[in-house]
Amino acid sequence: MQTTTFSTLADFRIVLGNMEQADQASFDAATARNGQLTKPPGALGRLEELAIWYAAWRGQAAPKVSHPQAVIFAGNHGVVAQGVSAFPAEVTVQMVANFQHGGAAINQLCRAFGTKLDVIALELDRPTADFTTAPAMTEAEVCTAISIGWNAVDPQADLFVTGEMGIGNTTSASAILAALYGGNPQDWVGRGTGVDDAGLARKAGAVRRGLALHAKHLDDPLMVLACLGGREIAAMAGAIARARAMRIPVLLDGFICCAAAAVLAQTQTGALAHCVAAHASTEAGHQMALKSLGLDPILSLGMRLGEGSGAALAVGILKAALECHSGMATFAEAGVTQG
Amino acid sequence: MQTTTFSTLADFRIVLGNMEQADQASFDAATARNGQLTKPPGALGRLEELAIWYAAWRGQAAPKVSHPQAVIFAGNHGVVAQGVSAFPAEVTVQMVANFQHGGAAINQLCRAFGTKLDVIALELDRPTADFTTAPAMTEAEVCTAISIGWNAVDPQADLFVTGEMGIGNTTSASAILAALYGGNPQDWVGRGTGVDDAGLARKAGAVRRGLALHAKHLDDPLMVLACLGGREIAAMAGAIARARAMRIPVLLDGFICCAAAAVLAQTQTGALAHCVAAHASTEAGHQMALKSLGLDPILSLGMRLGEGSGAALAVGILKAALECHSGMATFAEAGVTQG
Repeated sequence: MQTTTFSTLADFRIVLGNMEQADQASFDAATARNGQLTKPPGALGRLEELAIWYAAWRGQAAPKVSHPQAVIFAGNHGVVAQGVSAFPAEVTVQMVANFQHGGAAINQLCRAFGTKLDVIALELDRPTADFTTAPAMTEAEVCTAISIGWNAVDPQADLFVTGEMGIGNTTSASAILAALYGGNPQDWVGRGTGVDDAGLARKAGAVRRGLALHAKHLDDPLMVLACLGGREIAAMAGAIARARAMRIPVLLDGFICCAAAAVLAQTQTGALAHCVAAHASTEAGHQMALKSLGLDPILSLGMRLGEGSGAALAVGILKAALECHSGMATFAEAGVTQG
Repeated sequence: MQTTTFSTLADFRIVLGNMEQADQASFDAATARNGQLTKPPGALGRLEELAIWYAAWRGQAAPKVSHPQAVIFAGNHGVVAQGVSAFPAEVTVQMVANFQHGGAAINQLCRAFGTKLDVIALELDRPTADFTTAPAMTEAEVCTAISIGWNAVDPQADLFVTGEMGIGNTTSASAILAALYGGNPQDWVGRGTGVDDAGLARKAGAVRRGLALHAKHLDDPLMVLACLGGREIAAMAGAIARARAMRIPVLLDGFICCAAAAVLAQTQTGALAHCVAAHASTEAGHQMALKSLGLDPILSLGMRLGEGSGAALAVGILKAALECHSGMATFAEAGVTQG
């Protein structure tokens, strides 16, 4: 299989400037088909909109979701030295083993809807630098992670989900979002896996110090990713961009996934047109992130697990939307009188 | 297979007074298991609550959803003479044929999640009486419909969905809910399959006249069902009650299903403990109905199709919740450090 390596952030920026677009003819054909199906107009609500959006990206009037893929990227974070997580960093590698053995939530959710799951651990024994004292990653490191994400997307996939595991990564995501969208760092941090009030204050402090330390680089969203991100977040950004290049629709997961997506959106307007928000997490900053991204989540079930779990659950909704769109009879086919 | 026939509403009332309850030991065991799974406490949000609720009803600490069943009941309504629907009454029988041939939304949604679908047409050539001029059903008629619903539930099912088809039945549902909960009839009527403002006014007028005509019978929720309901609504009530008798959890669909459920809830406190609301419909009165029933919907996707479609979609969520609950490794099993 052909692989791509980005040597510089400038290379990746060029790719983001030349993105594939949805197919207007398929959008029109899917819209016309939707209007003929045996139901009152609009009665399937969001399912109709999702089906037409999906059809436009796949370039077909009546496609189905047959080969969804989920990829979990895992990374470790130097910022854990600031006491920002309720769990020790060793849990990242332990959870990767759990993913590999099929014991995590994401394994069950992928199995439930026929989603292929890949797990990619990114140098877990070499955490990123603590972003309160140095850039989290060098340009070479962030480019390597983006490239790994880029190459992780299966060209045969017809729906893509990306998830993550990384003790400390809600702090990194908060820092990225605060850098991209401004606002009070305190409003962007949340309880993650379950920190107490003191932990929450440490998270806000770490974000504040990170923003101050790297202030002169934060005009460039890709430098925000390098200075404040993590390998798994960079890999998610690379994967979301690659899905776009292959016109594979993406279900965005929660807070950390949206931080990765936001880097793309702030680099290039319209970079997330092939994405929908799968769910609203209860992680504090996620609602703000969705609002900043202009995305309306499909599900709102109080989830805050990461791993791609919310998006993997929404795969079932997407599949069902396309089953309806592409499997229903039209009024003419069914001999039903149209209202 | 043994069948039950209710000869009088009094017989059905006795059944509702002697209902099965969830199993406390299974609730406790499922709660304990949930606390040991490899995720931060509460991180799967509503999925955790649904899994524990389901486990308690099934009487197992770690069950799965293997045999979901959906039953659509169809009936015709004399009240269509009042000009309350955007579609002609002949569409009921046409849509039943569409269900039987696999062309409707519900067929696709059931196939998507492995749900068995049964379709039961209830004397479509003999509509109920127009409730603005007479009781919709005699006691014998409503008892027959309840009995058909009761006997339609498969004892092998482990999750139950009931849906309906019946041109005119949103008007009947509005009348039932207005009778049970009071309030302005106008607030309980909505656009159904798509009536215009004049149609909406006719619906409110029909409800108002029905309430006035049958006022002296409306203290008894089962008489509300007889006077203002329809055969498919009575059958849904019977089916929901039967699921309770077999401790089969139920996903309630939208507006009309909730009207059927409300008859049970107002007859006997706690009658819906084995039910969850699958979705929030955009049909105007559904939010009010959910509030009156004290139910919090799982999905909110702007659907308003009926047929059991919202509940059939939520089957995927329930299945996924139980896959997580019963399939995930515990911290001890996976060797993951607990936070």
